[in-house]
Amino acid sequence: MMPAHLLHCQLAVWMLLLMVSGFSESGKLLVVPMDGSHWLSMRLVVEKLSQRGHEVVVLMPQVSLQSGVSDNYTVKSYPVSYTKEDLNGRLQNYVSSHLTGQPFPFNVLSIYNASLSTFPVFVDQCKNLFSHRELMQYLKQSDFDALLTDPVSLCGALVANYLSLPSVFFMRGLPCNFHYKANQCPDPLSYVPRIFTMNSDYMTFSQRLKNVLVDSIEFFYCNGFYAQGINFASKILKRDVTMLDLLNPSSIWLMRYDFVFEYPRPVMPNMVFIGGINCDERKALPKEFEAMVNASGEHGFVVFSLGSMVSEIPMKNAKEIAEAFGTIPQTVFWRYTGETPPNLAKNTKLVKWLPQNDLLAHPKARAFITHGGSHGIYEGICNAVPMVLMPLFGDQMDNAKRIESRGAGVTLNIIEMTSKDLSDALNAVINEKSYKENINRLSALHLDRPIHPLDLAVHWVEFVMRHKGAPHLRPAAHDLNWIQYHSLDVIAFLLAVVLVTMFISLKCCLFCYRKCFYKKERVTKSSKSKTQ
Amino acid sequence: MMPAHLLHCQLAVWMLLLMVSGFSESGKLLVVPMDGSHWLSMRLVVEKLSQRGHEVVVLMPQVSLQSGVSDNYTVKSYPVSYTKEDLNGRLQNYVSSHLTGQPFPFNVLSIYNASLSTFPVFVDQCKNLFSHRELMQYLKQSDFDALLTDPVSLCGALVANYLSLPSVFFMRGLPCNFHYKANQCPDPLSYVPRIFTMNSDYMTFSQRLKNVLVDSIEFFYCNGFYAQGINFASKILKRDVTMLDLLNPSSIWLMRYDFVFEYPRPVMPNMVFIGGINCDERKALPKEFEAMVNASGEHGFVVFSLGSMVSEIPMKNAKEIAEAFGTIPQTVFWRYTGETPPNLAKNTKLVKWLPQNDLLAHPKARAFITHGGSHGIYEGICNAVPMVLMPLFGDQMDNAKRIESRGAGVTLNIIEMTSKDLSDALNAVINEKSYKENINRLSALHLDRPIHPLDLAVHWVEFVMRHKGAPHLRPAAHDLNWIQYHSLDVIAFLLAVVLVTMFISLKCCLFCYRKCFYKKERVTKSSKSKTQ
Repeated sequence: MMPAHLLHCQLAVWMLLLMVSGFSESGKLLVVPMDGSHWLSMRLVVEKLSQRGHEVVVLMPQVSLQSGVSDNYTVKSYPVSYTKEDLNGRLQNYVSSHLTGQPFPFNVLSIYNASLSTFPVFVDQCKNLFSHRELMQYLKQSDFDALLTDPVSLCGALVANYLSLPSVFFMRGLPCNFHYKANQCPDPLSYVPRIFTMNSDYMTFSQRLKNVLVDSIEFFYCNGFYAQGINFASKILKRDVTMLDLLNPSSIWLMRYDFVFEYPRPVMPNMVFIGGINCDERKALPKEFEAMVNASGEHGFVVFSLGSMVSEIPMKNAKEIAEAFGTIPQTVFWRYTGETPPNLAKNTKLVKWLPQNDLLAHPKARAFITHGGSHGIYEGICNAVPMVLMPLFGDQMDNAKRIESRGAGVTLNIIEMTSKDLSDALNAVINEKSYKENINRLSALHLDRPIHPLDLAVHWVEFVMRHKGAPHLRPAAHDLNWIQYHSLDVIAFLLAVVLVTMFISLKCCLFCYRKCFYKKERVTKSSKSKTQ
Repeated sequence: MMPAHLLHCQLAVWMLLLMVSGFSESGKLLVVPMDGSHWLSMRLVVEKLSQRGHEVVVLMPQVSLQSGVSDNYTVKSYPVSYTKEDLNGRLQNYVSSHLTGQPFPFNVLSIYNASLSTFPVFVDQCKNLFSHRELMQYLKQSDFDALLTDPVSLCGALVANYLSLPSVFFMRGLPCNFHYKANQCPDPLSYVPRIFTMNSDYMTFSQRLKNVLVDSIEFFYCNGFYAQGINFASKILKRDVTMLDLLNPSSIWLMRYDFVFEYPRPVMPNMVFIGGINCDERKALPKEFEAMVNASGEHGFVVFSLGSMVSEIPMKNAKEIAEAFGTIPQTVFWRYTGETPPNLAKNTKLVKWLPQNDLLAHPKARAFITHGGSHGIYEGICNAVPMVLMPLFGDQMDNAKRIESRGAGVTLNIIEMTSKDLSDALNAVINEKSYKENINRLSALHLDRPIHPLDLAVHWVEFVMRHKGAPHLRPAAHDLNWIQYHSLDVIAFLLAVVLVTMFISLKCCLFCYRKCFYKKERVTKSSKSKTQ
């Protein structure tokens, strides 16, 4: 028998030949990205699809947080009705509304209100796209095989419906668990925590109660949240549509998480888990960072970034943080563009940008202070760096809870925390063995996969392009109404049968009883009358 | 930028180097297979794991349907309390009980009774294993990393529990959907058909009613089915266990299907789908078959096999089949060891064995007549050959229904069919375009996967060996009782709150009303008395 390594050689050579000879059949893909950090990891997929020879067209508003320029794919941009300042202002307003610090449920309401004032910018963007006649004409005439989108702004889903294109969704999640609802995925309230509840999958009675209550109000607030977008979609599609109508035709849902991070729960066959897709191979550090890293000595360093959307915070909070950093022996790289706090210690380096993944991948990285965005968290997991989490908005609170519940990090409230809280948290994750052990375990589990998430995502986009969708993965549940889905009609029928049977049996018994009783009575009466 | 094909080259060379240098860390695996055809595909995984340098020990009863000899892995055999004739007799009795032909629900009862008389042989086998002191001592002392088993006989699951080993289940399914129940996987009755109902995922009201009724009796018949095994397990583990207690610790469930074949439905993150794992690359045909295939001319040939367990059928049925074959222009390869039917036509070649996959992979294969075992069906799908299905026992009726519902085959009742039924069915699948188109579509979807099912299975067995299980994929639902899982306690609490609130509000209203009314009454009375 052929030895294992020879078999492997043979396999690899075969793959090599296949790849050199051009394995993939080229297709035509339309991409409707979501602005902001969401685009960071989707761009990786788009780049790779372009490299594999597909014609990729990306729709970008002319005013955007991300650069649309690329040599690899075509960018079609369209003018929008707002300025860069408008956009930045709205987003900063959204972010700062989270920095006021309120208890539950006021935090939820605050987030809701902030979202209500920010979200219309994406609806406007979509209106601008659809009112660009020339571009829409081009889209109609181009024979795309499929559409790739992050559905959180709904615009991509609307374009897919409008052009009748099979679609692939690429996302971390949607408000109100719409990504499960639209996909007919069971979502048990008893162990699947709802967003903003900060519950884990193990809940006490009162936490489960909170989960049920939050779930029951989701219907109302999410309808408000998406009302404008849905109205616009109904107008464009010339029929009344709901959120679920727009989302449920999607062929494949590429979910930017895995179950090292997310709590295990029921899923559907058309959900593909690509958590960690953004973790890159470690590259050499730029010289200035290399020098600082080398100078950090045996204590190593800490990386601190609040993500691409938040580069400064109120001075009061910045001072608390700077004070805490002064108490630890590690060097701290702090991505910060605001005014330098007066109490900044020598070990703290303020930088306008930092090579986050390459720093985290360095063996001297001791801790990662993050806002808890899913990209950053996965870089922490991939590189096995314990975290201090300072969640700000969106899913960040819940992301932080997931890492904390696995013993791989400590969550702090950036508004309420003192410098002592932060230095305690840093000391804990750096010096207590359990945090490093837990993040090592999570990292080992996460990285032990049969295929890289990027290749997996590329495979499924190409799959949808090749087969014009994935109808074989679409559950029949889509064609059942709520009563049928829960078999309530069958249960009602069976109950009716049981009740009718009982009623007839009872009537029969009564009839027989009366017959006997009546006879007896008659006999008794007649015998009595005789005796009288 | 580096062109795509160069990037691929680089990747492939890297993989090559990795493989040559010995990628996998070797471990120690215990395998407890199920006898019969179930072992056919599990053996592929065991062989590959051995080739990858793991120490694999397979437990085999001395009397078995499959040969246990291998150069690659260690076989530990143990004596059993029955003879080869006993085993064959029981299995033949089981098979022939299905050839009587009865309507629903008598067919289910007949299968149930046949199973009740056949199944104890596997319990005996397990008792024999546990009474073999020397072997048990060896198992206890050997430090296995994990256990791989087909849990249908329960013995492997019992050994895993007994030795406290993390386990991987490898299977097509379990009676009564235990593979979903034990894994906390939602199983909606409205579109997930129960076994033996012959329902598809699209059901009428009466089919959904049947589904609910069958599901409600499953609890009773499955408990009867597994009663002996459970009793024995309770004795061995020295505590009362249920079927679910034995099954639910399993780390990974390797499911021998995918959603080209199975209806899409909710799944759990620890279920891995490896349908088509048994489809091999096409190999050259043996000379005698090559000659016959070449002689078949433009009409091509038909492959007919009823699986490894059924090689002969009653003469009455054999004659009907032989007659039908005489009416088609194709050559027929019929795996058959019984008496030659007197009306056998010239185009029909009776053979004791046939290279099924290699014949199906031949471009001249026109149709595949199969009993509907999952291995055979996947060979039909992989090679895109339309099927005529003659299901006999176990899951075969339901397998056949799945292929028929996708328009890739015709199902016949082998007992009731006439020769005309068979020739009509063959003419349909061979000459009507839709069957070939549908099986081509299924085949294309099935084969378009990011990784071969065999590599996927090997990866997950190694994963469990490396990490001593996969606890991160275990849902919290395992720790909830039925009431908690369905949030019935929360709902009851909320109802109670609503009722108490309503009661108090009502009482308050009544109190206020009475107060006012009483005052008025007093006022009225006093004014009346004054006027009097």
